[in-house]
Amino acid sequence: MDFTDQQLSELAEARAGQHETRRPTVPALEAMLFEPIPVLDHGFVRVVDYMGDDAAVVQAARVSYGRGTRAANEDRGLIRYLMRHRHSTPFEMCEVKLHVKLPIFVARQWIRHRMASVNEYSARYSVLDREFYLPEPSALAAQSASNRQGRGEVLEGGEAERVLEVLRADAARNYDHYLEMMNEDADGAPIDPSRRGLARELARMNLTLNAYTQWYWKADLHNLMNFLSLRADPHAQHEIRVYADAMLRVLRAWVPLTAEAFDEYRMGAATLSARMLEAVRAMLRGEAVSQPASGLSKREWRELMDTLGRDEDGGTAAR
Amino acid sequence: MDFTDQQLSELAEARAGQHETRRPTVPALEAMLFEPIPVLDHGFVRVVDYMGDDAAVVQAARVSYGRGTRAANEDRGLIRYLMRHRHSTPFEMCEVKLHVKLPIFVARQWIRHRMASVNEYSARYSVLDREFYLPEPSALAAQSASNRQGRGEVLEGGEAERVLEVLRADAARNYDHYLEMMNEDADGAPIDPSRRGLARELARMNLTLNAYTQWYWKADLHNLMNFLSLRADPHAQHEIRVYADAMLRVLRAWVPLTAEAFDEYRMGAATLSARMLEAVRAMLRGEAVSQPASGLSKREWRELMDTLGRDEDGGTAAR
Amino acid sequence: MDFTDQQLSELAEARAGQHETRRPTVPALEAMLFEPIPVLDHGFVRVVDYMGDDAAVVQAARVSYGRGTRAANEDRGLIRYLMRHRHSTPFEMCEVKLHVKLPIFVARQWIRHRMASVNEYSARYSVLDREFYLPEPSALAAQSASNRQGRGEVLEGGEAERVLEVLRADAARNYDHYLEMMNEDADGAPIDPSRRGLARELARMNLTLNAYTQWYWKADLHNLMNFLSLRADPHAQHEIRVYADAMLRVLRAWVPLTAEAFDEYRMGAATLSARMLEAVRAMLRGEAVSQPASGLSKREWRELMDTLGRDEDGGTAAR
Amino acid sequence: MDFTDQQLSELAEARAGQHETRRPTVPALEAMLFEPIPVLDHGFVRVVDYMGDDAAVVQAARVSYGRGTRAANEDRGLIRYLMRHRHSTPFEMCEVKLHVKLPIFVARQWIRHRMASVNEYSARYSVLDREFYLPEPSALAAQSASNRQGRGEVLEGGEAERVLEVLRADAARNYDHYLEMMNEDADGAPIDPSRRGLARELARMNLTLNAYTQWYWKADLHNLMNFLSLRADPHAQHEIRVYADAMLRVLRAWVPLTAEAFDEYRMGAATLSARMLEAVRAMLRGEAVSQPASGLSKREWRELMDTLGRDEDGGTAAR
Repeated sequence: MDFTDQQLSELAEARAGQHETRRPTVPALEAMLFEPIPVLDHGFVRVVDYMGDDAAVVQAARVSYGRGTRAANEDRGLIRYLMRHRHSTPFEMCEVKLHVKLPIFVARQWIRHRMASVNEYSARYSVLDREFYLPEPSALAAQSASNRQGRGEVLEGGEAERVLEVLRADAARNYDHYLEMMNEDADGAPIDPSRRGLARELARMNLTLNAYTQWYWKADLHNLMNFLSLRADPHAQHEIRVYADAMLRVLRAWVPLTAEAFDEYRMGAATLSARMLEAVRAMLRGEAVSQPASGLSKREWRELMDTLGRDEDGGTAAR
Repeated sequence: MDFTDQQLSELAEARAGQHETRRPTVPALEAMLFEPIPVLDHGFVRVVDYMGDDAAVVQAARVSYGRGTRAANEDRGLIRYLMRHRHSTPFEMCEVKLHVKLPIFVARQWIRHRMASVNEYSARYSVLDREFYLPEPSALAAQSASNRQGRGEVLEGGEAERVLEVLRADAARNYDHYLEMMNEDADGAPIDPSRRGLARELARMNLTLNAYTQWYWKADLHNLMNFLSLRADPHAQHEIRVYADAMLRVLRAWVPLTAEAFDEYRMGAATLSARMLEAVRAMLRGEAVSQPASGLSKREWRELMDTLGRDEDGGTAAR
Repeated sequence: MDFTDQQLSELAEARAGQHETRRPTVPALEAMLFEPIPVLDHGFVRVVDYMGDDAAVVQAARVSYGRGTRAANEDRGLIRYLMRHRHSTPFEMCEVKLHVKLPIFVARQWIRHRMASVNEYSARYSVLDREFYLPEPSALAAQSASNRQGRGEVLEGGEAERVLEVLRADAARNYDHYLEMMNEDADGAPIDPSRRGLARELARMNLTLNAYTQWYWKADLHNLMNFLSLRADPHAQHEIRVYADAMLRVLRAWVPLTAEAFDEYRMGAATLSARMLEAVRAMLRGEAVSQPASGLSKREWRELMDTLGRDEDGGTAAR
Repeated sequence: MDFTDQQLSELAEARAGQHETRRPTVPALEAMLFEPIPVLDHGFVRVVDYMGDDAAVVQAARVSYGRGTRAANEDRGLIRYLMRHRHSTPFEMCEVKLHVKLPIFVARQWIRHRMASVNEYSARYSVLDREFYLPEPSALAAQSASNRQGRGEVLEGGEAERVLEVLRADAARNYDHYLEMMNEDADGAPIDPSRRGLARELARMNLTLNAYTQWYWKADLHNLMNFLSLRADPHAQHEIRVYADAMLRVLRAWVPLTAEAFDEYRMGAATLSARMLEAVRAMLRGEAVSQPASGLSKREWRELMDTLGRDEDGGTAAR
């Protein structure tokens, strides 16, 4: 995460501002405001603005004239009730705006969440920075043998070195050719005054998918939690999960009661299918239940046993 | 617009709050914050929260690290450019939240704008107030003779009196029956302890469409302007237009540069069809152009002449 | 459900059409096409058009060149996998369009589902029919004593009679006044040629919320299932649930594999919170678990015991 | 546009299907169904399914029981009225589903249209084909000198050759390294059994932005036209415009009346700002109007003169 002097001074200036407002404020989030949280080798997430707090969820649910808060305990109970019963509209009443720097292949996953507003840095109009994502050795995973859409163990030794060298060399070469085709040097001056330079909107196609882009991203609290429940999940690709983890920190600072309910009723919860529920009921009645008899597929059975803290035969899992 | 003492005290308390924030603030909007703007006989619009300002539009368009403002003049130019070319995403980066009290038949039109978040007062859960919309005499319009979806002249004399009397009596009787069926008096106490009382979710069906409801409504600046361009328009029904007019006041206080560009490029602008453009080009070349020769329908021709400030024959309109 | 001769003839004509198409068709849904399914006393749901089938879900998930089907068993497995892991986009690839006649207070709940397209019959432009919903005696429920947003037992005797009489008389009177204010008789002719008649867009405000409206409603399969999971639920108000039930019949005829997976993984499934899962794990280990010790609220505990088929003390429920 | 034998046979099989349906069909679109329309060097657009036709727009606008068609002329008039007055919901009642193969940098622009459903080929799960976009010499444009977001003249001679050679070599090398890092040869067999191979979700980051991806894309007619009005516009990047042009062919075959109205009221129309309208009114009154006096910026003035078919001084443009 490298900033130019100009950027650092802009960030400092933004953080120095102090204004009076009648709106609700969240001191814990104010403290984080504008400050980049580092993610991956050159990326970041930073909160640029926010609207609302836990009390605003309550206020909207009650359609109240004032701040809507009664006893703090009642607010907590209502927020838990709303989360548990998937009453999503009160959570839509809070909003957060982030500035994110991220590799293009991560941006391509992220943008699939449609219920958000995005302004991306335009490579038709401007030149991208010379930054590309190279995985940490610990993130350099082999293809999973069991799961076509997943990672297995970490690559090691010569294979890991070769992969990193290829990624580095290809990204660098392609970026340098990108500048060369546009006839621009690193300072934006023409390399060769006799050449015209390829249009930016075309030259960018030579960049690799690990090049960094950046955008402003704004979503309401409900859609932020939808994003997090998918992207902070162990099945999400590591490179987007680290962004979700940074955003979870923002969530906890911003709306602590909502974040607590989110952990309880969504992140830490599990949905059991009709047949899974039947199997659990039978087990609780003391009946012997096996995968073949349960009607569950082997994969579902493993997931259920894992959720219930049982070993594969349904016995207490040694941990 | 009548408030209970409880509501007045909640409003006063909300307005009295003052907090420190690093976020941008808009003093002209802060001054209006929480204060109900009266609309129709019992309705209102009040701003409950907001996020962003004119500079936030610029900041997002530039994906900047700081506040993004340069010379005020450059900001104004960029905002006009974005509005003119329908670059909508930077305007999505600002958000406003309103508390609105409005007749149900107006709410039914309003809710058709899907790109917004709404929490409505629940008549399954609570009892609605005894308030219903009765038009001002000046709003008591006859059906238009020429336009099936519009209003003509104002009703007068005995017909007007009869209509108002019917509206008042039917709404009042139906409301009183609503309470009676629920077995609740005006203070919420049972009328007859031996009765059970009809469920609220059923009793509400006896209410008339001019009964007032209320909701929290949140939209981004882009979708707010979409709403306003349709609902502050002369073709919109008067009863929703007065809400749009109140919201235009909010827009002007909040984002004055955006509001100015909105007036210039949307509210005050006109879209000319391909054939309308051909007709204008011919007129500017000094050719005689008539409705039949233009290929325009009579209605389109009238609209064009009106837009161009010409009379029906294409001559300069006497004003 | 009463149709005019004109409407019956239009329905018959639509059903008589037969065309050749290269698109996939679903014979079981073709058989239902255009035919109104009666709901409540005057309402209906009828399928007006559809796009896609179970195979289209598979085809999109695989981004295939052909129909995408392999063994029927593989298709079923993939659909179940997609449903289980909430991969929603392949289900968005099917679409259904309904024509629905429904009471206005039901329409007000329904319209809250924003991810759908709606064209409603315009009461600004046209006159509504003289039809209003009156509950069956079995649906005439008292307010629930335990749940502020729910129904209790059925009203009986004099109280039921009085309620039905009020609902009938008020709706009828208000409708008759609606026509009178517009100066239209039942055939649309002026009652009194000397009067102008109130504008339709105003007169409609005298109607009650149980008056029937109608609309075309179009949604994709994913959003249809979201609608059904909320509205076919026992917590939904009876008057919208009966529409959801009719739509479930459509779902089963249209996409049987998807409907089966929907029953298994959504309608018949239950989400257990983090603490609920802990309690179940402890019970399976043979530990005594009580509500106070579980950290669950009384209400959550009751829900959990109900889901698990246990009585309130955690023992096997006698059924 | 190269297909494998397997793909060709699947396409042929899909086109060979014929079914009976009660739904409306559009013979001109049936004729195109499933057939890829070539775009760029390896891309295509093909219609996979559709719902509705011009009459379905009319039917929804009228909320009719039957097909809703009266005289063909009335349908045309209503469709033009709806388009002119931006009544968008009836157009949402038709739907089209496309299978598209396109370069990733084009996909990144395309996906910004949020009101559509997308299933993209997963490079986490599968290996992409060895195909990348290389511009035709005529599309190899220099950066525009006057417009930071645009193209100028075509590159020629040695500069053009060098650019093409760089694009080709970098894309090919990066693709080959992509396979190598995954330890897969062109047939998917392991290159070196002793290596594990990098996870697909990571290896893909070495690909260039001109690599081809593919997706299923579904949108309603209203949102399709929004897409086309932005992407078939001369200001759109050439590489996405050619896709929009192919989709315009689909639009014209599918809904000819809607397509005609779209040309008249959107593609061929122009929006004049409040000041532009003032200037036109003054010109029609025979007054001399100049850019400085008009209050329009130089750029707006040029656009207005261009729209009106005038030269820069407001005189008749020689063409």
